[in-house]
Parts: sequence; structure tokens; C-alpha cells
Amino acid sequence: MSELLEQAVTAELIDSLRAVVGDKGILVDAGDMAPFLAEERGLFVGKALAVVKPASTAEVAEVVRLCADAGVPLVPQGGNTGLVGGNVPFEHGREIVLNTSRLNRIRAVDPVNFTMTVEAGVVLETIQHAASEAGCLFPLALGAQGSCQIGGNISSNAGGVNVLKYGNTRELVLGLEVVLPDGTIWNGMKALGKDNTGYALKHLFIGGEGTLGIITAAVLKLFPKPVEQQTALCALDDIAAVTKVLSRARALSGDAVTAFELIGRFGMEIAVKHLDGVSDPFEAPHPWYVLVEFSSSRPDSDLRGAFETFLEAAFEEGLIADAVVAESLDQGKMFWRLREGLPEAQKHEGASIKHDVAVPISRVPEFLDRATAAVEAALPGIRPCPFGHVGDGNIHYNLTQPEGMDKAEYLALWEDMNRIVHDIIVDMEGSISAEHGVGRLKVDEIVHYKQPVEIDLMRRIKQALDPKGLMNPGKVVRL
Amino acid sequence: MSELLEQAVTAELIDSLRAVVGDKGILVDAGDMAPFLAEERGLFVGKALAVVKPASTAEVAEVVRLCADAGVPLVPQGGNTGLVGGNVPFEHGREIVLNTSRLNRIRAVDPVNFTMTVEAGVVLETIQHAASEAGCLFPLALGAQGSCQIGGNISSNAGGVNVLKYGNTRELVLGLEVVLPDGTIWNGMKALGKDNTGYALKHLFIGGEGTLGIITAAVLKLFPKPVEQQTALCALDDIAAVTKVLSRARALSGDAVTAFELIGRFGMEIAVKHLDGVSDPFEAPHPWYVLVEFSSSRPDSDLRGAFETFLEAAFEEGLIADAVVAESLDQGKMFWRLREGLPEAQKHEGASIKHDVAVPISRVPEFLDRATAAVEAALPGIRPCPFGHVGDGNIHYNLTQPEGMDKAEYLALWEDMNRIVHDIIVDMEGSISAEHGVGRLKVDEIVHYKQPVEIDLMRRIKQALDPKGLMNPGKVVRL
Repeated sequence: MSELLEQAVTAELIDSLRAVVGDKGILVDAGDMAPFLAEERGLFVGKALAVVKPASTAEVAEVVRLCADAGVPLVPQGGNTGLVGGNVPFEHGREIVLNTSRLNRIRAVDPVNFTMTVEAGVVLETIQHAASEAGCLFPLALGAQGSCQIGGNISSNAGGVNVLKYGNTRELVLGLEVVLPDGTIWNGMKALGKDNTGYALKHLFIGGEGTLGIITAAVLKLFPKPVEQQTALCALDDIAAVTKVLSRARALSGDAVTAFELIGRFGMEIAVKHLDGVSDPFEAPHPWYVLVEFSSSRPDSDLRGAFETFLEAAFEEGLIADAVVAESLDQGKMFWRLREGLPEAQKHEGASIKHDVAVPISRVPEFLDRATAAVEAALPGIRPCPFGHVGDGNIHYNLTQPEGMDKAEYLALWEDMNRIVHDIIVDMEGSISAEHGVGRLKVDEIVHYKQPVEIDLMRRIKQALDPKGLMNPGKVVRL
Repeated sequence: MSELLEQAVTAELIDSLRAVVGDKGILVDAGDMAPFLAEERGLFVGKALAVVKPASTAEVAEVVRLCADAGVPLVPQGGNTGLVGGNVPFEHGREIVLNTSRLNRIRAVDPVNFTMTVEAGVVLETIQHAASEAGCLFPLALGAQGSCQIGGNISSNAGGVNVLKYGNTRELVLGLEVVLPDGTIWNGMKALGKDNTGYALKHLFIGGEGTLGIITAAVLKLFPKPVEQQTALCALDDIAAVTKVLSRARALSGDAVTAFELIGRFGMEIAVKHLDGVSDPFEAPHPWYVLVEFSSSRPDSDLRGAFETFLEAAFEEGLIADAVVAESLDQGKMFWRLREGLPEAQKHEGASIKHDVAVPISRVPEFLDRATAAVEAALPGIRPCPFGHVGDGNIHYNLTQPEGMDKAEYLALWEDMNRIVHDIIVDMEGSISAEHGVGRLKVDEIVHYKQPVEIDLMRRIKQALDPKGLMNPGKVVRL
């Protein structure tokens, strides 16, 4: 198409879109669009023909149909908090961003059925609060919960801190409403615990990162709200024991372990040094720590008793060296601040090269040993700061730069370090993207590491559902 | 193809298959094949060119490749206990049955990682025992567990009695190994709690009923083994209260409810009349009963105390009329015999027309009212015997014939009754096949009830993964 013709077609499309979503539903000014075009860490900064904000499923369907007819690709976007560039447009500027912020109604809360029906643009924290007000728990919880939207959480199959007990977002979704790439609406809003009437379509859209369709609403699972919670920090002298500690905790608590988070000695040191109100509760230093939390909705559950039984057993078996059970809500919060403040503490120590990886839980110690030996061999002085959801086998294997090294020089090693760590992960049958997804960042990396048959299956599915390739193209899998 | 040519091609294929699986891996004699060709209730009796029993994944792959090259369709089969005819060949006799019985190795049990790696042909009960011996629980449990195979359980996303707490089979599978329709092996045997590196391929094969590929092995999730269990039978005078009873039980037990099974008065009466050792533990008759079970892996969990707290609360709110907590293991077993013996007790009362349906849990009472009014209006004297997994919203809505009616005359009403019940189910946004699947039995029924877009999506996926249509054709969705 000539440039002039293209401009005319675009102008006509913009007019048609404006007629669907109204003036406040469309942004075309570069300044207005800017916040929707950049990934939050500035890793990717794209351009777009427009940012469209439909306010209903019908509007989404009409926007998708118009773009499909015009052959213009769409980038679905929620709270724009994704970490792999799946949520922002490319630099070429010929895409339209479909932002779901105005799809922000909670359609129903049903505490007896333990379900909530929400539109894609509802902010995660709003859902958590609505569940809580109804005496229930929606367990998905993660750093970005104040701004990320449930549609994005579902599209990226978000993980977070409660996966061990409640599963990933995938396990929390009963039903979905999806606008397909041609603008057809699929109403899969079933609030059912069991439904074996054909292929599990919802599971393609969950974690599909908007490449197969746009999620507009969902039926979510709720749970009884915990009324008792106990938190402890355990010190381990040998990381090899960590899986057994988890296994004992699960059994002796009646499977009430809601968090099991790893912190290394370096993490403890920088947290104490840089984070307000964080101190090391142990007299002696230990190489590893695990933050363990038990929760129960049972009013007479005596979780404290269960904790003591568990800690005694773990001591007797020589699995843990020391432990501090939080004596107050404040001390529990301090343990969490220690864990959750690690990315912040790292910033004070210079640049970081990050990995979001998973291995089978029982192989976490082996992974940590191998990865640390390999990166230290590649760059003496590098300071590994592994932390995260060890209860899911998911480690944020972050590498802080050597002291005194130039930041840019260190960050230039990003891909080399990725290769070292991911090679070990793949050799150990792990995942190179445990919870953040593929997006744009890892689209070549998964081709490098996955079996060709798996990429082929993904392409066939993409081709079958989005034959024109207009739904978030270039993300997850290329046609 | 002429008949003679077809016979020659078939003979050549059989020879090639025999070369792959050996003499004991192939049956061609009609008498030898008979047990593999009929659905267990005799609903479908098919024919086949051969029954092939490969003993390894490599053999499965080679068999699939040979059949694909010859254009001969395959019917994957496990323990042949399915209830919708998905597991048996058609009457035309031009298919080959691929039976997984010889893929019967448990490859690994990892109690620390809470995983087990098994081949498709391992019998469910064997898996339960192996988990138990390792101090763990594999929670899938259902009537056919002594003969059904895990590959079939996964392919049909089996439900059973523990879904409320542990989920359907889908939730119990971490990784899969699948032979695709062209004979390629997909190794998706990840033992990971988190893996967001692309589309959730495994969820297409889980519940795919062998129409997209053949599952040859799986990594299963294990759980801490319960060490305490309490069972009670609750009597309800008003079915409307059942959802609140469940909600209180979940909250006050710390979400330790492992079974919540409905039994109606008619069910109680015929169970007491026909089943050895079953008696009504209540002095007065009640219209509804619920079997409630709490389980915990915690040694000091005081589940009895939790049960008493729950029952007192339910009494005070007027939700239950009476309750008996099992005072012994034997009494607990009697409660289960009452529940599980219902299909058997029904047989003594004549013919049954059956439905395996689900609605949102909170709408179960409404469904029971509407369905019973409708079938009684259609056939006065009909005796509804609803029972099942009310904790999942899944009711086996079985209809016993009127007393004295001719069996065949009653069974001729099967489709009429299905239409009445399924119309109500679909109107209530339920599922017409909660746990048994689609197979051959419901392949037209789902076309009748599903949105066309959903059938279209299913066809596109089938076409994308099995373009020649040779993998269990005519089941789940027709091309």
C-alpha cells in the first residue's frame, strides 16, 4: 500500500473506532498515548496508531472487527505492568493498543458459591477487597496488585506468593468471556467446578498473552477467608534441606502452608543495610532463610501449635538451624518486608541481571549450586541474590553486579548470563519463564530451548485461531 | 479403494504393526478382540481391524506413524471403563484399537517433590497404593479405580469423589508425554509448579478423549497423606440450605472438606432396602442427606472438634435438621456404602435413565426443583434418584422408572428425558457432561447445546492438530 493510501485507510479506521468508543475512548495524541506505549522499566518503548479504550464487551468486539477488516494488528493491554514486553506495541507504530481499563465492573460476588464475576479491567487489589468484604479470599497476590488488571493476570497466568496453596491464576479461573480475533464473542462464563463437554478452550486464552483473543470478563474462584495466620523465619545451614523442610511443613500443618519463600545470606545483608525497619532476627549469620506462613479459615485451628510441632520436627531432623516465629503482626510484616524489599535493596548495590526460572522443587538446591558456580566462574565478584517462591520451585535468580564494576559494562553481559543460567535450567528440565511469560522478551529464547514439535504445535494453534495474525503479533510465537 | 486392494493394504499394515509390537502386542482374532470392542454396559459394540498393545512410547509412536501413513484411524483405549463410548471403535470395523495396558510402569515416585511419574497404562488403584506407600496421597478416586488406567483418566479429565478439595484430574497433572497424530513424540514431562513459556498444550490433551493425540506418560501431583478423617451424615429438611451447609463446612474446617455428597430420601430408602449392612441412622425420615468428610494430614488437627463446631453452627442457623458423626471406621464405611451403592440399589428398582450434569453449586437446589417438576409432569410416577458430588455442583440426576412400567417402554423415553433435563441445565448455564465426557454418546448433544463459535473453535483445533482426522474420529467433535 502506498503511504498516502495507508494514511487514508488509517484515518478512516480511527473515525470508525471513535464512533464505537466515543471521544473519551480513544487517544491519538503522542503525549496522551505515551504512558500506554512504554514498558514500565523502559525496556521497550513503542508507537501506535491509537490507544482505544472500549467500555463494554460489545465495544471490544466491534473494535476488534473493525481492526480485523482493516488488517490492523491489535495489542491487548491491561494495567501495563507486564515484565516481558507482551503488553506494549512495537516500534513500527502500525498497531493499535486496546486497553481494558474501562471494562472495570465487578458483575457479581457470590460468597456462597465461592465465585466472583469481573470484567477484564478490574484492578487486582479491588478484587481482593471485594472478596474480603464478602468474607472470602481471592488468593492471587503479587507486587503489582495495586495497578495490574485481572485480564492481564489471566492472560499472563500470573503467579505470585500464594501459588503453593492456591495455584497459579489458571487454577483460579472458572469461566471466561473472550473476543476472538475476528470480533466474535465467545461466552465461556461458566461458574462450574466440573464441565467435560469438549476441549478446554479457556486454557488456551489463559496464559495466551492476548495472542489468541482478548479476555473481556471472567468468573473467578474464591476461597474461605483465613482467620488465623502464623509466620516464621527459618534459618538453614544447608540449602539441600529446603525441600524436606517444605514437605514436613505441608504434612504437619494439614497442607496449610500459604507461603514458603527463599532468602539468601546476601539478600539478608542488603535488606538489613538498605531497608527501613528490617533487621536480622538471628544472632548468628546463616547462608539461607525461608519465610514460612501457615493460614487457616478455621477459628480454632491452633496454627501456632502446628508451627511448633513442625519446627520441633525440623530441628530434630537437623533440617533447620534456627527459627523465629513472629510474635506480633508487626514482626510478621517485617519478615514480609525483608522478602518483598529484596528487589529494592538490590538497586542500592548496582545493576542486576534477572532470571525468572523454575525447576522441580526437589532440584532447587542443585540448581542454586550449579548456577552460582557457573556465573561466578564467568564473572568473578558477581553477587548472586536468589530469592522467591521456592515452594513452587520458582526462583528469581537475580545477579547483582560485582562491587565497583561499571553498570553498563555489567548489563552488557545480560544475554551471556541468561545463556549460562538458562542452559542449566533446560538441562534440569526446568522453565526459563516460570511466571512472567514470553511476551516479546523471550520469543526467540523459547524457540532456542523448546523442542521443535512444541513450537510447531503453538504455531498451528495460533494459525488456527488467528489466521490473519493480527492479535498481538510477534509475541509468544511468530507465525 | 477396491475391497481386495483394501484387504491387501490392511494385511500389510497388520504385518508391519506386528513387527513393531511383537506377537503378544497384537490381537486380530474376533474372539480375542471382543473385550476391547464393547463398552462395558453394552451401549456400543464395535469392530476393529486389530487391537494393538504397544509396550513403550517408542512403540506407540511407530504404531501411530504406520497407521497415519496407511490412513487407518486409531481408537486409543485404557481400561475401557469410559461411559460415553469414547473408548471403543465404531461398528464399521475399519479402525484399530490402541490399548495402553502394557505401558504399565511407574517410572518414579518422589515424595519430597510430591510427584509421581507414570506410564499411561498404570491402573489408578496401583497409583493410589504407590503414593500411599511413599507416605503421600494421589487423590483421584472413583468407582472404576480397580481397572481404569491413568491415561484414560487424564484423557477424560476424570472427576470422582475428591474433586472439591483436590480438583479434577486436570489439576493433578503437571506434565505429559503425548504421541501426536503423525507419530511425533511431544515430551512435555515437566514436574514444575510454574511454567509460563507458551500455550498450555497439556490442557488440550487432558480431556481431549484421545482425539488430538495419545497420552503415553504423565507427571502427577501428590499431596500429604491424611492421617485423620471424620465422616458425618447430615439430614436436611430443606435442600435450599445445602450450599450454605457446604460454605460453613469449608470455612469452619479450614477448607478440609474432602467429600460432600448428596443423597435423596428415595435413595436412602432403596439403599436400606437393597444393600447389605446399610441402615438409616436417623429416627425420622428426611428429604435430603449429605455425606460430609473432613480430612487432614496434620496429626493434631482435632477434626472431631472442627466437625462439632461446624455442626453446632449449622444447627443454630437451622441449616441442618439432624446429623450423625461416624463413631467408628465401620460406621464411616457404612455411610460411604450407602452413597456408593446407590447405582446398585437402583438396579433393583427397574430401569434408570441417567444424567451427569453440573450447575453452579448455589443453583443445585433450583435445578433439583425444576428438573423434578419437569420429569414428573412428563411421566407421572417416575422416581428421581439424584445423588452425587454436590460440593462440585455435579449431580448424577438418575431417574428410576415408575413402578410396574415395562422396562423397554421406559428406556425408549431416554432421549425425551435427556432433552427435558438438559434444556433446564443449559438454561441454568450448567454442563450436560460434568465428568463423563463427550465421547460418541454426546457428540451431537453438544452441537445442539453449545454456541456455534465454541464448536467452531473445537473444530479448528482438531483440524490444526489432527488434519487427517485419524485420531479417534467421530468422538468429541466431528470435522
